[in-house]
Order: sequence, then C-alpha cells, then structure tokens
Amino acid sequence: MRIARFTTGDDPRFALVQQEGDRTYLAVLGGDPLYMPAMPTGERIELGDGVRLLAPVIPRSKVVAVGKNYADHAKEMGGEVPAAPLLFFKPNTAVVGPDDPVVLPEFTREVSYEAELAVVISKVCKDVEPEDVRRYVLGYTVANDVTARDAQRTDGQWARAKGFDTSCPLGPWIDTDLNPEDVAVRSRVNGELKQDGRTSDMVFDVSFLVSYISRAMTLLPGDVILTGTPAGVGRIDHGDRVECEVEGIGVLANPVFRRA
Amino acid sequence: MRIARFTTGDDPRFALVQQEGDRTYLAVLGGDPLYMPAMPTGERIELGDGVRLLAPVIPRSKVVAVGKNYADHAKEMGGEVPAAPLLFFKPNTAVVGPDDPVVLPEFTREVSYEAELAVVISKVCKDVEPEDVRRYVLGYTVANDVTARDAQRTDGQWARAKGFDTSCPLGPWIDTDLNPEDVAVRSRVNGELKQDGRTSDMVFDVSFLVSYISRAMTLLPGDVILTGTPAGVGRIDHGDRVECEVEGIGVLANPVFRRA
Repeated sequence: MRIARFTTGDDPRFALVQQEGDRTYLAVLGGDPLYMPAMPTGERIELGDGVRLLAPVIPRSKVVAVGKNYADHAKEMGGEVPAAPLLFFKPNTAVVGPDDPVVLPEFTREVSYEAELAVVISKVCKDVEPEDVRRYVLGYTVANDVTARDAQRTDGQWARAKGFDTSCPLGPWIDTDLNPEDVAVRSRVNGELKQDGRTSDMVFDVSFLVSYISRAMTLLPGDVILTGTPAGVGRIDHGDRVECEVEGIGVLANPVFRRA
Repeated sequence: MRIARFTTGDDPRFALVQQEGDRTYLAVLGGDPLYMPAMPTGERIELGDGVRLLAPVIPRSKVVAVGKNYADHAKEMGGEVPAAPLLFFKPNTAVVGPDDPVVLPEFTREVSYEAELAVVISKVCKDVEPEDVRRYVLGYTVANDVTARDAQRTDGQWARAKGFDTSCPLGPWIDTDLNPEDVAVRSRVNGELKQDGRTSDMVFDVSFLVSYISRAMTLLPGDVILTGTPAGVGRIDHGDRVECEVEGIGVLANPVFRRA
C-alpha cells in the first residue's frame, strides 16, 4: 500500500496511490491513516495538473536523523564509522514535499543533498526491542537530509546546518510494504547520478536504529527516522534539480533556489 | 500577567495566576491563550491539593536551545565562548511540568541540571530583526536543560544527551511582563544553592538569539528557546530534588528518579 498526502488547492487529504500502466491515481481516504484505518471515500483523482503531492507526513514531534551510517560516506566526510548511532534532530518546520523548492539560506554558501531512506512511526513506542520494531513502523518514504556543509563544520552542533526551513524534503509517498533491508538509495542532480548505495550497507539497520532511539525517547505516530546517506554527497545550487530515490518507493524531486 | 496550564484530573486547561498574600489562585481561561485572547471563564480555583500545574506549553514544533551562552559556564565545561550561538534541539517529548519526575535513563550514569531562562514564542516569525523580537514573544518561563553529561561527551551530537524523555522540565508558568535583561537564574539541589547567575551575563541576549534562530528556521507559536545556563552545573541522582528559578518568574521544582 502506498499512502500519499495531497492537495487540489484546499485542505490536505490522504489517498492510496494506484498505478495503472503509466497513469497514477489517488484513491482518496477519509481522515488521517496515521490515526485511523485507511477508509477510501470512493473519490478517485488522477495524479497530474491541479493535484499537488505534499510531504506524506508532518511530524507532530520530531525527525530523528542518523549521521555517518554508511561506511563509505563516513570515509568521504573524513571520519570513522561511529561506535553507536550518531543522532540529531531536524524540526518539523524543515519538512517540505515533492517538487517544493529547497531554499538556500543566506548564512551558507555550501549546501549538499543527502538521499536517505526514511522510516515513518505508526504507534507510540518506548524501549522497543529490535525484533519488535516492525510493529511500530507505518512504512517508508524518501528523504533528502539537506545540509549546509559550511555551517556544519563551524557550528559544532548541527541544528542550523541541518534544521533550516526546507532542509527536509520527504516523499513522494509512504510505502507500507517495503522490505528495507537491501534496496538502492540514489540521488541525481540535474539528471546526473551522484549517489548509488544500498541499505544493506548501513552500519546500523532500521530495527537497531528505532530500538536504540526508543531507549532514549518516546517515538510518536508520525515521527520520522532518517537512516543516513551513502557516499557521493555534493553541492547543489540555485537552479539545480535534485532527485532522491529509494528503490521500491519512488523518486523525490526538488528544485533548488536561492533568494536573491 | 502569568499564564499557567493545569489539570484537576481531566483535560489540561489554562489559567491566569493571581497571588493574594501567600495564597495562589488560578482564574480559568477558555481555550489556549497562544491562539486566542485570554478569556476568563469566571471560574477560580485555589492552587493546592487536587490541582496540578503542567508544563505551561508543549511546543508543536521545537525547543531550540543554546549552548555555552554564559562565559563562566563555557569555562567550567573546559571550552571557549562560541563565536556564534551554539544551537541544538530538544524534542517536545522531553517536556515535563512542575513536580513531574526527571527520570534518569539507563544509558547514562552522569546527569546534570542546567537552570535556564526560557522564551515562549507567540507568533510565526522568520528573519525577524533583534529590535522587533519582543513582538513575537508571549513571555518567559523557567527551564531545566537536563543533560546526560557522559553521553554528551561520547555522542558528538547531543540529541540523546539532551533529548531523552523528561529532560526538559518547563514551568511553573509563563510570565508575560518580565524584562529578561538582568534577572537572576539559580538552581538548588536538595535546598543547596548550586547556580546563581544573571541574564545580563549572557553572551548573546534574548533578542539576538531569537533573531539569529529565525534567520535559519521559522519559529511557530509555542516554540520555546532555552537561553543557556550559568556556571555551577553538577550532578543529580535518584532521590534528589532539583529547583530552577528565574527571578521574577518563580521556581520550577522536580524530583529525580532512576527506574529500578
């Protein structure tokens, strides 16, 4: 099942995504599938003009992200793989959806994309064992952990470098059936392949991460875990178009702007 | 005006705090004063048995905190004053209220209190100038930026060390009239004075901090800014009672527990 959040110009609604050949339809749901069973209303809309996909979830509490969770990326950043997951937060004000612009802030001259598998939490969880994690996961989506590399180097803590408005594109939808153990994680800038890793190369896998995080803090429905990025990160700038892809989910594309 | 959030056993409500001699009354408000003008319902409750104060605000988006914002504290931590505000996040799941227990997590053996002045944002703001900040501040409350010092040293990023459940006591209420420029910030453990600083010794003052943060990220109504702690931090452990105080606001007291 794929769950999208969308607008046709009014309040956001949720829908199941249905693929028929090369056409994509949205089977509209009543309510928010995070908090109630997915109930189709009967309305069906073709994805296209006048329909805008939104971030499939806006966390009411937190995005917890993991740094240096692929050995090849830790190496390209000049560091070692951490002994334990390296956790940081991105605020919900950083979340944008498919095709929303990533707006480069004034304080940075060096912004990078980071394609990541994102985990969407379905139920309140605390102190969950790795083998039980699947019961607390609604599904998976694609994230771009956009990072102001210069501020990341100078600030010490990463709140500004990884927390600025538009620094957390999520989408295009939540896939509830994905097996996250070994899928490709890729990015492209202006069509050129930049990252091409596999989740099987994560230092800490999804179950370990969610369990580890839940030992420190309660995860709430709609909380999102970003699981780290493979090697191949690099700069984006005004006028670029960045695509992040997770095999089996889809492509999250965003244009990049700098305010004049 | 002082705004409290409280419960008498049912849904949380808001109230204006009225002091009459040594008795404290809550003049109950309809709705949430963050989103509508403060409208007294006429009901009045004496603070005491059967009335529990809650955190005066649960941020819908974020708590942004500032590290090493007092020179004497930066020095006791073995560091320099940062050249720019050192920002990090605490999640809303870390927030607890007056008299709620601070529960020490299993992953740490060394937890510290940090008394701080907390700023509560009233209106959406982005790119606000320091001289305009006051228009976006609802008021001030007291925070304890509880920190797992050992995890802070080993983790690199501070999400776990400063983001665990119960690591952000807030209260006892929001004071909307405080002038934050030069008030005392104190803490006591089991009655013994530990910290005794003044906000006039902040490296970056409230207006600068809110303006600086707003250049990176949009602040929403109910977002909270913790402005850093003065020197004198130290350990708390099971059975302790920690009090944080900001002159002109009041005392935020919390018992400390470790799960057996």
